[in-house]
Amino acid sequence: MEKVTVLAGGVGGAKLVDGLAQILPPEQLNIIVNTGDDFEYLGLKVSPDLDTVCYTLAGIANPETGWGLADETWRTYRELAALGGPDWFHIGDSDLATHLFRTERLRMGCKLSEVTGVLCKAWGIAHPVYPMSDEPVETIVHTQSGESLGFQEYFVHQACQPVVKSFEFLGVEGAKPVPAALQGLAESDVVIFAPSNPWVSIGPILAIPGMMAAISQKKVIAVSPIIGGKALKGPAAKMYQELGITPSAFAVANHYQDFLAGFAFDAIDAAELENIERCRIIPLVTDVIMRDQKDRIRLAKELLSFSETIHFRRR
Amino acid sequence: MEKVTVLAGGVGGAKLVDGLAQILPPEQLNIIVNTGDDFEYLGLKVSPDLDTVCYTLAGIANPETGWGLADETWRTYRELAALGGPDWFHIGDSDLATHLFRTERLRMGCKLSEVTGVLCKAWGIAHPVYPMSDEPVETIVHTQSGESLGFQEYFVHQACQPVVKSFEFLGVEGAKPVPAALQGLAESDVVIFAPSNPWVSIGPILAIPGMMAAISQKKVIAVSPIIGGKALKGPAAKMYQELGITPSAFAVANHYQDFLAGFAFDAIDAAELENIERCRIIPLVTDVIMRDQKDRIRLAKELLSFSETIHFRRR
Repeated sequence: MEKVTVLAGGVGGAKLVDGLAQILPPEQLNIIVNTGDDFEYLGLKVSPDLDTVCYTLAGIANPETGWGLADETWRTYRELAALGGPDWFHIGDSDLATHLFRTERLRMGCKLSEVTGVLCKAWGIAHPVYPMSDEPVETIVHTQSGESLGFQEYFVHQACQPVVKSFEFLGVEGAKPVPAALQGLAESDVVIFAPSNPWVSIGPILAIPGMMAAISQKKVIAVSPIIGGKALKGPAAKMYQELGITPSAFAVANHYQDFLAGFAFDAIDAAELENIERCRIIPLVTDVIMRDQKDRIRLAKELLSFSETIHFRRR
Repeated sequence: MEKVTVLAGGVGGAKLVDGLAQILPPEQLNIIVNTGDDFEYLGLKVSPDLDTVCYTLAGIANPETGWGLADETWRTYRELAALGGPDWFHIGDSDLATHLFRTERLRMGCKLSEVTGVLCKAWGIAHPVYPMSDEPVETIVHTQSGESLGFQEYFVHQACQPVVKSFEFLGVEGAKPVPAALQGLAESDVVIFAPSNPWVSIGPILAIPGMMAAISQKKVIAVSPIIGGKALKGPAAKMYQELGITPSAFAVANHYQDFLAGFAFDAIDAAELENIERCRIIPLVTDVIMRDQKDRIRLAKELLSFSETIHFRRR
């Protein structure tokens, strides 16, 4: 069985990570999660993608929203709003405990990867989950209007309305991959880019110095987050459009071209097969939508079988 | 009608403040609250006495505990404990909103008195409530064992078990009274020391530079927090004992001797009348226990009537 490193952002990525974790034992799966979305809210260190991945792996994620916890209550959020406090970022009462815990441990001098390990243990997660870096990296969205926004300000507060001009990963030049994650990556046979946003979920991970070099030594398979020209969730398609690229599975394959050995995309986009093959990328045309737990496992299995058929050669 | 400034700490003080607020219009009552107990917990700026006074005035205080809010839930607290986070200081979900709000506003550069004003407005409190200072002052409990403890560490975490040697109000030399509170004090005819702990509730307020001078211009009445040699709540009696003073109403009168024109204490301590009068302090022997709302109003009324009988002369 091949050892897998998976790079993931939020909801879509978390689902695939969960599928892989259902199949692979902990030592065969190395999970690296985007932290460019991390931000400070009410003085709390919030790591939205790490939490979504962990909550999903722990089976405690809110199945409707895709973020936050199931069976959540909103007492503090509502009281704070009633006092006139900030209310644009929704933090449930249980979720708040995660942020308070993380913030407290970081203040004590723990690394983000260490806190994540402690949280995973508390949640009964056996697979190793790593932030892309222990150093803070901040995804900045530069907009056509000239305004520059922190990612959550763009994504949640302004509901992705501003038109994107470019992205910046603030602090990335000083960031390093987490050593254990890099070790896991070195031991991996394949790296899977989960169906997460190429610009703001996978992009920041690849921008960490050393990450790209390590990944380019490996067989890489990406899963398209664009299906029928649209993203299931989030602004990936809108971003492609605003950056002058027609959103499509091919656009994603093209985006990752320098890395890809294989590319999985939805049957609805089968017409793009030829274009993708022309990039010397091996295609997997399948159903990439993960509606339920079964779909997650099915897609994960398909990807692992697909990977085993690909004989890696450095490009 | 006389204008009143009241100095208060937590539970007992809050009850008397509430009684006074039921009788006096906002412009006739100036409330100054101890903030020596304030501390940072989980990165949150917690002001226990301010909150107890405000929650009590707003009619939303937990009637059983004396601190925190009525109808509280404990979701975040419990989840945080389950994660292995600190759990020795109990913060309910609604109470947490207060601390998050205060912390956020202080971070934005607001003064504690300003945040307190905003919170009071949100809670519908018409009477002005001021922290003893906008500058942080930290009550330190020096113990016989040589250990020095922050007040909440001593009071909550170690449940007042360590034997007290002395107190220190860290930062007090750089602190100033809140100008509006000092103005209200200057306009007052009488200053009432609520039945709060003389060492760690009233003591820190008196230690703020300028406060003692302003108060010594005024007619001062104290209410004994020691009843039958015991404190209704909290470690006041234990502290007197550990500092080599027999806890009694007289000990409290003696403690405040330099200030006092009048002193209210419980009928159970009537035997101490002579000792108190010998200090040239005018006594009010009454029922100082505030069991319910009626008691708060009764005691407040008695104190106001008592004050009107005292012709102030500077000592």
